[in-house]
Amino acid sequence: MARIAIDLHGGDFGPSVLIPACLHYFRAHPEHHGVLFGDQNVCKPLTHFCPTNIEWIDTKDIAELAHKPAQLMRRDSFSSIETAFKALRDGQVDALVSAEHTGVLLVLVAKYGELHSALNRPVLAAWLPTLTGTAIMLDLGASFTANQQQLLSYAAIGTALVPISEENPRLSLLNVGAEYFKGPEALRLAHATLQGWSNINYRGFIEASDIFNGKTDVIVCDGFTGNSIIKASTGALDLTFALLKARLERGLLKPLLAWWLKRQLKTVLKKLDPRLANGALVTGSNLLVVKSHGNANDRAFTSAIERAVCALALDSTGEIRRKLDKLDEKIPLDRA
Amino acid sequence: MARIAIDLHGGDFGPSVLIPACLHYFRAHPEHHGVLFGDQNVCKPLTHFCPTNIEWIDTKDIAELAHKPAQLMRRDSFSSIETAFKALRDGQVDALVSAEHTGVLLVLVAKYGELHSALNRPVLAAWLPTLTGTAIMLDLGASFTANQQQLLSYAAIGTALVPISEENPRLSLLNVGAEYFKGPEALRLAHATLQGWSNINYRGFIEASDIFNGKTDVIVCDGFTGNSIIKASTGALDLTFALLKARLERGLLKPLLAWWLKRQLKTVLKKLDPRLANGALVTGSNLLVVKSHGNANDRAFTSAIERAVCALALDSTGEIRRKLDKLDEKIPLDRA
Repeated sequence: MARIAIDLHGGDFGPSVLIPACLHYFRAHPEHHGVLFGDQNVCKPLTHFCPTNIEWIDTKDIAELAHKPAQLMRRDSFSSIETAFKALRDGQVDALVSAEHTGVLLVLVAKYGELHSALNRPVLAAWLPTLTGTAIMLDLGASFTANQQQLLSYAAIGTALVPISEENPRLSLLNVGAEYFKGPEALRLAHATLQGWSNINYRGFIEASDIFNGKTDVIVCDGFTGNSIIKASTGALDLTFALLKARLERGLLKPLLAWWLKRQLKTVLKKLDPRLANGALVTGSNLLVVKSHGNANDRAFTSAIERAVCALALDSTGEIRRKLDKLDEKIPLDRA
Repeated sequence: MARIAIDLHGGDFGPSVLIPACLHYFRAHPEHHGVLFGDQNVCKPLTHFCPTNIEWIDTKDIAELAHKPAQLMRRDSFSSIETAFKALRDGQVDALVSAEHTGVLLVLVAKYGELHSALNRPVLAAWLPTLTGTAIMLDLGASFTANQQQLLSYAAIGTALVPISEENPRLSLLNVGAEYFKGPEALRLAHATLQGWSNINYRGFIEASDIFNGKTDVIVCDGFTGNSIIKASTGALDLTFALLKARLERGLLKPLLAWWLKRQLKTVLKKLDPRLANGALVTGSNLLVVKSHGNANDRAFTSAIERAVCALALDSTGEIRRKLDKLDEKIPLDRA
C-alpha cells in the first residue's frame, strides 16, 4: 500500500480538475491511499461519493505562493503544498504529487528534504515518448547550466530510473554533434568519464533529432536545453495537428470521414504528447516528489499519480541514492 | 543580377544532389549567375544541358576537410569550399551557398571575412515555420553559450533580417518561463536592456512552446539551445508522421484512401519541416554565406540558393552591419 499526498491547489485549474482525477484514481486502486491537502471550503462541494481510501487534510490555500519561490524559504506557511511537504518529511505519506510551479517545488524540496551530497540542487527527470517506447530525459530545468559533475550525477540518476529488469541501460549525452570533439567543454569532460563507467551501455553524444527515435534509454542534458526541448516539441506537435486538422476540414470528405480521421490523429497525439506522459520526478533528495504539468487535465494528472506509485514500487529514491553514493566514492566532486 | 557561388562538395550527398539543384534553379532564373566550385572529374559526367548562366570552377575536393575545423586555419587549401570562399572575399561572387559542416563554415568565415567588432564569432540564423508564417531564430549553434552582449547582438541581427516593410518586428528572448525573474542572469540582463530599445516591439521572454504559434517574429537564444530545439522539433515531427502512417496503414481504408491521406500528410509536412525551410545565414561578417542542411535533397538545396538571392536583394549583410554599428555606439561591449 502506498500513501500518496496530493496538493489540490497547484496547477492552472486547481481542485476542480485535481479532485475528479484523485477520485477516479483511488476508486480504481483501493490498494493505495490518497491524502488530499486542500482548503475544505473550496474542496468540500466537489467531493461527493468519496471512496474510503481517501483522506482529507484541511489547509489554507495561499494564492500568492507562486510568485518569488525564494521567499518561501524565509517564512512558515500552512498552504496545501507546504502542509503536504511537512507530512512527507514526517513520514506520514510516502510520496507527494503536485502541479505547483517547478521553482516552488525545488525550494520546498530544499526546505523539507535532504539533498544528496553529490548534488547542490534537485534534478528534474521525465519520460518522453519514442518510436519504440519511452526514454528518460534529465535535467529539465531544475538548473540552467550543467558542469561535468552535474552531468555525471544526472547520468547516475537517469540510469537509476531505468527498471533493473532492463540490464545495461543505453545512456547518451545531448550535444550539437555526435563527434567526440564537438560541443562545450563540460560535455566533452563528462563524455571522457562516462566511457570508463561499467554497468551502463554508454552511447556517446546524441543529437536532439535522435531523442524520439528510440536509440537510447537515458538522455542527459543541461536543464535549460532540456526544458526548451520538451516545450518546443509540444509546440511543434500543436502546429502539426492544427495544420493537419485545417487541411482535413477543407478536404472533400467532410463531415463523417473527417471526424473519423481526427479521431485517428487524436489517438496518435495521445501516444506522443509529452503533456500526457505526465509526471516528472523531482529527484536528488530523500523525498519522493512528482511534478505534474500545470495545465494537466484530470487524465494527465492521473498519470502523475501513477508515476508516484510506480516510483515507490521501484524504490526509485533509494536506487538514485545508491547510484549517487557510488558517484561520490568514485570521483572527488567539486561542489559549490 | 546576383552571382552565387555554390560549393558542390559539401553535405551528405555532394555533386549528385547539388548539381541537379543548381541546374534547376539557374535554368528557372536566367537573371542570376551560378558559379559552381567542384572537382571537374567528378562533376563533368553530371552536367549535361548546362544553361549559359552557370560557370564552372575546377577545384580539388579534399575529403578529410570535415574533421577538425580548427586545422583549416593553419594551412592553405584548394578544396571547393576554400576556393569559393576566396572568390567571395575577392568580390568575384556576391554570396556563397554550401552544405558543409557548420564548424567548417564558421572557421572559413573567420579566415576570409571580417567579423563585426560587436561580435567575437559569427551567428547562425534561420527561418522556422509557424502557424501564421515564419519566424527568425538565432543563434543556432555558432556559439554554445550567450552572455548579455551576445544576446543583444543576436537581437540586432534578428531584427535586421525582418524585411523593412514589416515595421517594428516582434522580438522575444527564449527562457524557461515568461516571468521577468526567471532564467539565467544573462537573459535577465538582456531583458532589462531590450525593454529600453526603440523601433522594436520587444515582447519579453517566450517559452519554447510558443516558438511555432506565430506570437513573435524573432526568437533570440543561445546556440546550444537553438540547435537542440531545431533538431528536437524535426525529431518530434518524424515520430508523429511515422506513427500516423503506421496507424493509417493498419486501418480499414487501404489502399486508395491511405495513399490519399499520406499525400495530405506530406503536404503538411512540407510546410512544417525545418529541413525544407532550408538555408541558415552565417551572419556577422562582411561575407554573405548560406548554410544548407547536410542532408538536403535537391529541392531543399534550391531553397538555400533562394535564401542567398533574397538576402542579397534585401542587403541583409549591410542591414546587419548597420544594426550592429548602432549596438556598438549604444553599449560599451565587454568583448573577449
